[in-house]
Amino acid sequence: MIPSEIIRKKRDGLELAREEIVGFVDGFLRGEVADYQIAAFCMAVYFRGMTLDETRALTEAIAWSGKCLNLKCIKEPKLDKHSTGGVGDKTSLVLVPLMVSCGFLFPKLSGRGLGYSGGTIDKIESIPGFRTSLSVREIKRNLESVGGVIAGQSPELAPADKKIYALRDVTATVESIPLIVSSIIGKKLASGTDVWVFDVKVGKGAFMKEIDEARKLAQTLVTLSQQFGKKASAFITDMNQPLGNSVGNSLEVEEAIYTLKGEGPSDLKEVVLSLGVALSELAGRPLSKSVLRKKLESGEALDVFVKIVEAQGGDPRVVEDTRLMPYATYVRIVEAEREGHISSLDAEKIGLAVLFLGGGRRRKEEEIDRGVGIKLFKKEGDRVYKGEPLAEIWYSSETDLERAFGLVKSAYEISEEFKGRRTLIYERI
Amino acid sequence: MIPSEIIRKKRDGLELAREEIVGFVDGFLRGEVADYQIAAFCMAVYFRGMTLDETRALTEAIAWSGKCLNLKCIKEPKLDKHSTGGVGDKTSLVLVPLMVSCGFLFPKLSGRGLGYSGGTIDKIESIPGFRTSLSVREIKRNLESVGGVIAGQSPELAPADKKIYALRDVTATVESIPLIVSSIIGKKLASGTDVWVFDVKVGKGAFMKEIDEARKLAQTLVTLSQQFGKKASAFITDMNQPLGNSVGNSLEVEEAIYTLKGEGPSDLKEVVLSLGVALSELAGRPLSKSVLRKKLESGEALDVFVKIVEAQGGDPRVVEDTRLMPYATYVRIVEAEREGHISSLDAEKIGLAVLFLGGGRRRKEEEIDRGVGIKLFKKEGDRVYKGEPLAEIWYSSETDLERAFGLVKSAYEISEEFKGRRTLIYERI
Repeated sequence: MIPSEIIRKKRDGLELAREEIVGFVDGFLRGEVADYQIAAFCMAVYFRGMTLDETRALTEAIAWSGKCLNLKCIKEPKLDKHSTGGVGDKTSLVLVPLMVSCGFLFPKLSGRGLGYSGGTIDKIESIPGFRTSLSVREIKRNLESVGGVIAGQSPELAPADKKIYALRDVTATVESIPLIVSSIIGKKLASGTDVWVFDVKVGKGAFMKEIDEARKLAQTLVTLSQQFGKKASAFITDMNQPLGNSVGNSLEVEEAIYTLKGEGPSDLKEVVLSLGVALSELAGRPLSKSVLRKKLESGEALDVFVKIVEAQGGDPRVVEDTRLMPYATYVRIVEAEREGHISSLDAEKIGLAVLFLGGGRRRKEEEIDRGVGIKLFKKEGDRVYKGEPLAEIWYSSETDLERAFGLVKSAYEISEEFKGRRTLIYERI
Repeated sequence: MIPSEIIRKKRDGLELAREEIVGFVDGFLRGEVADYQIAAFCMAVYFRGMTLDETRALTEAIAWSGKCLNLKCIKEPKLDKHSTGGVGDKTSLVLVPLMVSCGFLFPKLSGRGLGYSGGTIDKIESIPGFRTSLSVREIKRNLESVGGVIAGQSPELAPADKKIYALRDVTATVESIPLIVSSIIGKKLASGTDVWVFDVKVGKGAFMKEIDEARKLAQTLVTLSQQFGKKASAFITDMNQPLGNSVGNSLEVEEAIYTLKGEGPSDLKEVVLSLGVALSELAGRPLSKSVLRKKLESGEALDVFVKIVEAQGGDPRVVEDTRLMPYATYVRIVEAEREGHISSLDAEKIGLAVLFLGGGRRRKEEEIDRGVGIKLFKKEGDRVYKGEPLAEIWYSSETDLERAFGLVKSAYEISEEFKGRRTLIYERI
């Protein structure tokens, strides 16, 4: 295998053989393929794409590049869920305990946030004491005792993904469907689950801005998952405006807890229930939305959440007193400057505002402030009067407040007439 | 300047500003832009191309990345020539002394060969004692005393080119016109000459296989050179079959010496004279082919060659006794298997055969055997009889002889009828 010949073949639009792709990635891990060759290869893939066979080979090379979580001893189906990332998306925090309360196993391994997109691990760590770095033994034990786990992806699983992603991140090669798919499915394969649901976000606050691109990604995810013998489905959901009414780590956990109590915003609930129904169907034990809703209203899902928190060293009293989590000291209200209807609420701007407040990371090594965030009182389609509060900015220092304030203000567009509400769930694939 | 944003802009087909390109290359030299970012950038350029303004900015960044040969104290025009590389191309070895014998100054800085393409420096070093590593002071002194220099490109001139080329070479990003042009002109600018002629080779043994691509390269080279205030012209010449009748280092110097004596193959002479006429015109003192031919026949050009050899420490007796150069011990003849006309003689195969014999480099650090090579007795359009010698293989060991023999044999195509001779010089731009 001559690395430059692999790159050349891809550059010239020829299909690579399985052995060529696997050899290329293995060579990278062994130090025989240089990082600049991976970077050039990824750019060639950006332009030329990959066939499904090529994508599968790359996915396998990533999946088996390190250790795997061997959950085969547990016979029952193990659920998993992946979101392509958005603003205010705390779905996993509700979905995991909900499905566990229905008797499913759900070992959820998640990532941290980067840029304006939040990460489940960053959010749940707002709970005092909650540990997200679990050993394989702990994951298995908690899965047997509680049924659910919310933990960070171990660096030992699919290490090629981490190395390749780090290069893609700094060489403008993130936005490539085969590279995205192989990264997502490679990690999922290594984590040993078997029933997968994908939440592909589309819109201003999502990685995918266009529905066509989102559909292509969703279809590739599902097709490839099925080729690996997994039960899989994908939803394309809206990320033009944030999901739910809270953005920021502690604020989002707070909203997840409300939702687990049967309250919470309707859009968040709708996404959770839709994903839950799909997972139950794929797992061969279909449940209706009303059955799932009852698990929220009865407090059974919340009980599981408490057990997960306890099992991972967190303070379970947080579900009664969310103020145990870090909260920003100051609050500033953003008021409507005119009367009308909210015609648009830009999720990217809200995400960026939280990033500037210190609630997200611009670079991977940055510390984050879990107390800051934004509460949205008005969302698309809502009626507002002049001077009425649109949102609250929770901030810790004045430094970046003005910038965040300007972003939140400009995120809201108010028009005279009511233009209708946006669709939340576009498609299921 | 955020490197990944520069890459993204190019990837998305947007035009980069001068400062962005210069900052990117300077950042690379300072270690702030990583080699994997240069690699991804080059691949993006491969797919998106560059505008002339972008190419100019990249060229300047390369040209001024190190020291420059300051020849401004010498008022007369300083000639230069660049060939895109081919098989059997010993033009510079004849052209430099020829033009110097006409009173022009010609400081020729050349590269080494790589792959099946030979390099002027490798060839001239066949002459015992000949030094190609000259200091700037030596170059200036020889230019004043002799008028001509044939030396290696100093590593201090345009160091960015060397660093970028090394990456392109292993990331399949060599074949990109803006990258080729910026590399060629960047080096020429740093070497301080002012009248340039480009020999863009096209055909089986050239980098450019198609005339359209060659024309595009030639036009870009000339346009950009003129923007830098240089007198420039480009020729598109044939490299389907080798130039001249000898391929291999000592054998090519031998052929150059014959040509400097007014003998030598007609195709080589034709290219030398055409380039010479163009250079004289561009320099404002036009000379005809017949005037130049007389300089060869009178021995004046050869006298200059002797002076150049002497000035650079080489043994001048070589022009009388070419056997002072290294020659391979063994010779094997390749015979025609049938009667007919040579319809094709594949330059790439001949170049590869010499490479396998040890006369070229597969990797930059390889040693080469200057004694090996191939003498071609028959070229395209020639009549042959069955059993007549087509070529001689000069070899030092049996190891790769069979492979080389097979290549030479298959390089020749013999057909029943005469299909005409190929054009040697396609266009002048």
